[in-house]
Amino acid sequence: MEPHGLNPDPDVVTRLRGGLVAAGLDAIVAMSQDNATYALGVGVPSHRLIRERRVAVLVPHDGVPAVVAVTVEESFLQANLNGVEILPYDEHTETAMQALARLLSARGLQSGRLGLEMDFIAAEDYAELTRLVPGATFEDAAQFFKRSRWVKTPRELERIRRGGRLADEAILEAFRAARPGMTERNLATTMVEAFLRRGGDDVRMVVLGAGERSSHPNAPPTDRPLRAGDIVRVDFLGTIGGYFTDCARTAVVGEPTAGQAAIYAAIVSIHKEVLSRVRAGARTCDLYHLYNTRAAEHRLQSLRFLGHGLGLGLHEGPFIDAHTDIVLEPGMVFAIEPVHFVPHEVGFHLEDVLIVTHDGHDVVTDVMSTDALWPIVA
Amino acid sequence: MEPHGLNPDPDVVTRLRGGLVAAGLDAIVAMSQDNATYALGVGVPSHRLIRERRVAVLVPHDGVPAVVAVTVEESFLQANLNGVEILPYDEHTETAMQALARLLSARGLQSGRLGLEMDFIAAEDYAELTRLVPGATFEDAAQFFKRSRWVKTPRELERIRRGGRLADEAILEAFRAARPGMTERNLATTMVEAFLRRGGDDVRMVVLGAGERSSHPNAPPTDRPLRAGDIVRVDFLGTIGGYFTDCARTAVVGEPTAGQAAIYAAIVSIHKEVLSRVRAGARTCDLYHLYNTRAAEHRLQSLRFLGHGLGLGLHEGPFIDAHTDIVLEPGMVFAIEPVHFVPHEVGFHLEDVLIVTHDGHDVVTDVMSTDALWPIVA
Repeated sequence: MEPHGLNPDPDVVTRLRGGLVAAGLDAIVAMSQDNATYALGVGVPSHRLIRERRVAVLVPHDGVPAVVAVTVEESFLQANLNGVEILPYDEHTETAMQALARLLSARGLQSGRLGLEMDFIAAEDYAELTRLVPGATFEDAAQFFKRSRWVKTPRELERIRRGGRLADEAILEAFRAARPGMTERNLATTMVEAFLRRGGDDVRMVVLGAGERSSHPNAPPTDRPLRAGDIVRVDFLGTIGGYFTDCARTAVVGEPTAGQAAIYAAIVSIHKEVLSRVRAGARTCDLYHLYNTRAAEHRLQSLRFLGHGLGLGLHEGPFIDAHTDIVLEPGMVFAIEPVHFVPHEVGFHLEDVLIVTHDGHDVVTDVMSTDALWPIVA
Repeated sequence: MEPHGLNPDPDVVTRLRGGLVAAGLDAIVAMSQDNATYALGVGVPSHRLIRERRVAVLVPHDGVPAVVAVTVEESFLQANLNGVEILPYDEHTETAMQALARLLSARGLQSGRLGLEMDFIAAEDYAELTRLVPGATFEDAAQFFKRSRWVKTPRELERIRRGGRLADEAILEAFRAARPGMTERNLATTMVEAFLRRGGDDVRMVVLGAGERSSHPNAPPTDRPLRAGDIVRVDFLGTIGGYFTDCARTAVVGEPTAGQAAIYAAIVSIHKEVLSRVRAGARTCDLYHLYNTRAAEHRLQSLRFLGHGLGLGLHEGPFIDAHTDIVLEPGMVFAIEPVHFVPHEVGFHLEDVLIVTHDGHDVVTDVMSTDALWPIVA
């Protein structure tokens, strides 16, 4: 990930430091893949593939940040980090918690107030850490990290802009190449290749289903061929520098029926009405209420949310649902996704990623027109 | 993943049931993505992407297995599971632990002895569960799951065979298309497309580095072009039905120098000698000792392990390292990977996946010849 610039992102470190001082903490420790990547600006490569290879990133209120990671990642971290202490541990002979305890002691934090991700740290690790560092006070910093990540930094927004554009271009390229008789898998492969060729870093998942399979919100592609009359639904989850894009589009094989066209037209009209309200100062529950009212008027079968924040996590807060009342701020990023899902029958989906601005928003998945179902024809 | 057959794998359920009875447990609960997929035979799609969407799979000593998952996954699970109770929970209004507690109560297990993955369950979830089900005894079942997974079932082996072959074919196709001046990213994209087009399900990571970047064990590809004299190292991590393949190959741009050829020849000779000892009854520490002795004789800079089990996890036990003394059994699967890594300079890597048999082993990554560095020429 070297081309993405120097790590960590200084704006992130400043924000985390400011937050932990305000919370009365001496340091925070990130251990999840998303929060560790947030604090470092780059992911420890094997962290998301091998859960036994624990990572711990320490951000103290003073002193440089530090990362505890397995020895095989040391050279990558040296090449990609600036101003971060690297503490490699031998995964065959010691535990990450032992290495973290050494670090806390070396930094004079063995009696400190430390924030941990209680929604991530394994029960076993937590027990070991409290035993190894009995003088420290551990507090739950899960919400602290979540809130810190809601408003993105300029560097984060640049990655999100690129990812959205590339994902939408990749879907468009695949839809243009789509023909009746192709399999779901063929179509998904074309999208993946197009995203990576354009410079995307990773494709974490492609949800793609035709006909009755379009109804499963997160189903992977299979060898089912695209048949006349099928609704084809895709939800593309790629990353740039670890940051997700989440873009969904719906196509139809051949001419849409009047019923298919009407459902999709309702989704488009609701999407546009909701988007017209998205700006700094809007409230998540108001957006959801508008969506829910319109979906009911059109008899759409919607999910229990309209949208979600995204970034290093695919689903981040704030959620746009009935239970969340948050005021939108400039720099927040949302995926907005009106849908119509009839279990085991059909699924329609329109999802765009946007950045909230002072007087509105910028849609970053703005390449293909989504005013009508994309027609897949011979 | 419907084409992969009916779920769960009956051999897995039988094995887990037998093990938990022998361990004196009333039930086990799988919560990690790998163990939940093991117990169900199919992954809950969003489980590996959204860590907040907890999954819990209950396997009781009697009664059918059950899965607790978010409501949006219900239709997929209905379409892909047989004989498994599905308990959807609304992620916006309740927690997975609340749903799990209801399930335990409904099954009469509220005072039972229950095995949990203490190396995975979040401290917060563990605290909530012990509060909601105060009469139960929770024991650590992490090792129970690990040991259960060492020897693969026939269905698991079929997936691993296919994955190995497809990964090796994909690397070969990309190497044949490789030319000086192509970027690391171009080459990786070609491999991904080739793997998916042949029927691979997912590419979880492609490690690919040229020149000095080949030295980072797990670095992703960048826009660095392939230049004359570069060593190009690839480690391809794809999945079939959730099962990993892990295949590494090394190429050279142009003619290898005498030094490059000699290092690679040493790796090949060590690899062949080690493989000649891999059979049921061999001991992991003996294999590692042989490797370590030969690597020292040839002055190779090796990692602290020669190989690892793999399956639903990329690195599973048993490890082939200095600290593990396990007797190989038929049906165990290993990635064997002799290497030479000089930090910030160069990395050579040869990695094959094999299945242990009674009288030897079957290499499943057996498509391309690896006797010499692959030459990338104009």
